[in-house]
Amino acid sequence: MTVLVLTCAEDVTADMVVSALHDAGVPVVRLDPADLPGQAALSAEYVKGDFHGYLSADGGRVVSMSGLRSIWIRRPGEPGAHALEQSAWLTAESTQALYGTLYCTGVRWMNHPVAAVQARCKPWQLRVAHRSGFAVPPTLITTFPQVAREFAMEHRDLVVKSVSGAHPSDPPMALPTTRIEPDADFAEVGAGPTLLQQRVPKRADIRLTCVGDELFAARKASDPDQVDGRFTDKGGSWAPAEVPSRIAQAVRAYMSLAQLAYGAFDFAEDGDGTWWFLECNQGGQFGFVQLETGQPIAGAVAAWLALRTAG
Amino acid sequence: MTVLVLTCAEDVTADMVVSALHDAGVPVVRLDPADLPGQAALSAEYVKGDFHGYLSADGGRVVSMSGLRSIWIRRPGEPGAHALEQSAWLTAESTQALYGTLYCTGVRWMNHPVAAVQARCKPWQLRVAHRSGFAVPPTLITTFPQVAREFAMEHRDLVVKSVSGAHPSDPPMALPTTRIEPDADFAEVGAGPTLLQQRVPKRADIRLTCVGDELFAARKASDPDQVDGRFTDKGGSWAPAEVPSRIAQAVRAYMSLAQLAYGAFDFAEDGDGTWWFLECNQGGQFGFVQLETGQPIAGAVAAWLALRTAG
Repeated sequence: MTVLVLTCAEDVTADMVVSALHDAGVPVVRLDPADLPGQAALSAEYVKGDFHGYLSADGGRVVSMSGLRSIWIRRPGEPGAHALEQSAWLTAESTQALYGTLYCTGVRWMNHPVAAVQARCKPWQLRVAHRSGFAVPPTLITTFPQVAREFAMEHRDLVVKSVSGAHPSDPPMALPTTRIEPDADFAEVGAGPTLLQQRVPKRADIRLTCVGDELFAARKASDPDQVDGRFTDKGGSWAPAEVPSRIAQAVRAYMSLAQLAYGAFDFAEDGDGTWWFLECNQGGQFGFVQLETGQPIAGAVAAWLALRTAG
Repeated sequence: MTVLVLTCAEDVTADMVVSALHDAGVPVVRLDPADLPGQAALSAEYVKGDFHGYLSADGGRVVSMSGLRSIWIRRPGEPGAHALEQSAWLTAESTQALYGTLYCTGVRWMNHPVAAVQARCKPWQLRVAHRSGFAVPPTLITTFPQVAREFAMEHRDLVVKSVSGAHPSDPPMALPTTRIEPDADFAEVGAGPTLLQQRVPKRADIRLTCVGDELFAARKASDPDQVDGRFTDKGGSWAPAEVPSRIAQAVRAYMSLAQLAYGAFDFAEDGDGTWWFLECNQGGQFGFVQLETGQPIAGAVAAWLALRTAG
C-alpha cells in the first residue's frame, strides 16, 4: 500500500516526510500534478460497476489507485503546467482527470481538496472557531463605512487584514495585518469588503500544528506593540509550548467540523495567557517550526500517512 | 424568513421561480454577486461567540442573514465584476466575504457551493453513479495511447467527450460528444487526458430533473445514430416520462452521496428500455423542459426553497 505525495519538485518539507516514510519502509510515489500529461500519466477504467485506476510518475513507476493508502497534498503544481502546449483547456481537463479519479479511490486525504476549499474561507473559519470553543477577537467584515466607524468607536484598538489571504498577484503580494486608528477615514470601505478586528495586545505568538490527533504548539515571545510577526525580525525564536486542555478540545472540535486531517492554527497569547484564535491554515507550513523547536512534525505527518486502516 | 436567490439580472428561469415564491407570499431577495461591492453590500459581525450578518440588495432592501430560510444559486455573476475598479484582488476579497459569511448561516442551499465543486467532477460522477445503482457505459480516462487502443478494440463502438465539460473560452466553446472509429489514431492521447466511452445505441434521450425529493423525467425520441442531441435539430420534442422505481432509488442514492438538493441527470435509453447514466449536472437548466413538458419544475424549486425547517 503506497502513499501518494502531490507536490512540486523543490519542496524540502515534502523531502522530510518522504524520507521518514522511506525510513519506515512505506512505499511512496511523489507526483507533481504539473507533470500531467508528460512525466506523469494516468488511466482509469469504469467497467461493470468497478473502477480501476493507476498512475505513473517518479520516472515510470506505476501505482494502482486501489493500492494507495493515503494522499498528501503539499504544494502541487497546476495540472498541465509543464506540458509542451499549455492551455487553460488542458489544465481543466488534466485537473478533472487527476483529482476526479483520485476522488474515486476512497482513501484518506491530508487534506481532501473539497474540505480545503471550505477551510480556506476566513469568515467561515471565525464562525467554526467560535463554535469550537476558541476565544475569537471581535471581528467585522463590511462594505458599510458607517458600520466600520461604529465598530471602530466601540472597539478602539483595531487591526485591518485581508479577507481572502494572499493577494492574487504572481508572486503573491504580502499583506501584513496593520494597526489602524479608530478615527481613520472609513469611506473607502464601500469600495471593497474590509475586515476589521480588535487588536489583541499579545505577549506571544502561538503556532499550533495539528496532525491527525497529534498537537504541536510553539510559542514565540512578542513585543506587545508588534502586530504581524511574519514581517519583522523582532521577537525571539519558536520554543515548544504546552497545549492547554481547553485548547486541545477546541482544536479537535474545529478539525472535525472542518473535516481536516492537518491544520496550522495561529493564536495571539494575551497578558492573561488566553490564546485568541486568528486563523487556521489548512496548508500551513511546518518546516520552520520543526527546525526551531525540534518537534517531530514531519514524523507525525509520515505516521498519519502510513497508517493502515480497515478500508 | 427570506429566500436568497443568487443570480444575474437576465435569468428568465430565476424569474419563474421568483414569481412562484411571490405568488406563495414568500419573501425573496435577489442578488447578483457581481454587484458586490456597489449595488449590493454586506456586513457581518463576530462578537462574543455570536455571528450577525446582513445583506443589502434589490435597491437597498436589507435582509438579516439569520432571517434567511434558504439560498438558491442559479447563475451568479463573479463578485466584484460590476465594480468601478475591477481586479482579481477585489474579486477574491468579495468572493470570500460573500460566500464566507453566507456559509456561517447554516441555512439550506440549493446547492451548497462546496458540494457543487465536487459534484462537477465527471470522473467522480461515474463512480458515484456506479455506487448508486445506475447502469454506466464502460468508460476510460487515460493518457496512455496503448490503453486507449485496447479499450477501443474491446468496446468497438465508441464516443469521445470532454473530461471537464465546457471549454474555458469566453464564450465557452461547444464540445459535442463525438463518435470515433476503434482503429482511430490514439497517439495524441498522450498529450492530454482523453475520455472514451462505449456508445449507447439509444432510442431516446432522458432528462431527469431532481428537486429535493421530487423527480421530473422527460423523454425525447432519438435517431439511434445520433450521438449528441444538444447539437442537432433532429428528434422530437420533450415529453413527460415515468420514472422506473429502480431509477428513482438510484437518483436518491446519488443525491445523498453527492449532498445535492438539485440535479439534472442525462440518460441514454437503449432498445431494451435501460437508462444509461451519462452525467448529472448540479446546475443544469430546467426551463426548456418545463416549457416543453409542462412539468412544474420551477414550482418545485420554489416549494423546496420556501420550506421552513425546524432549524
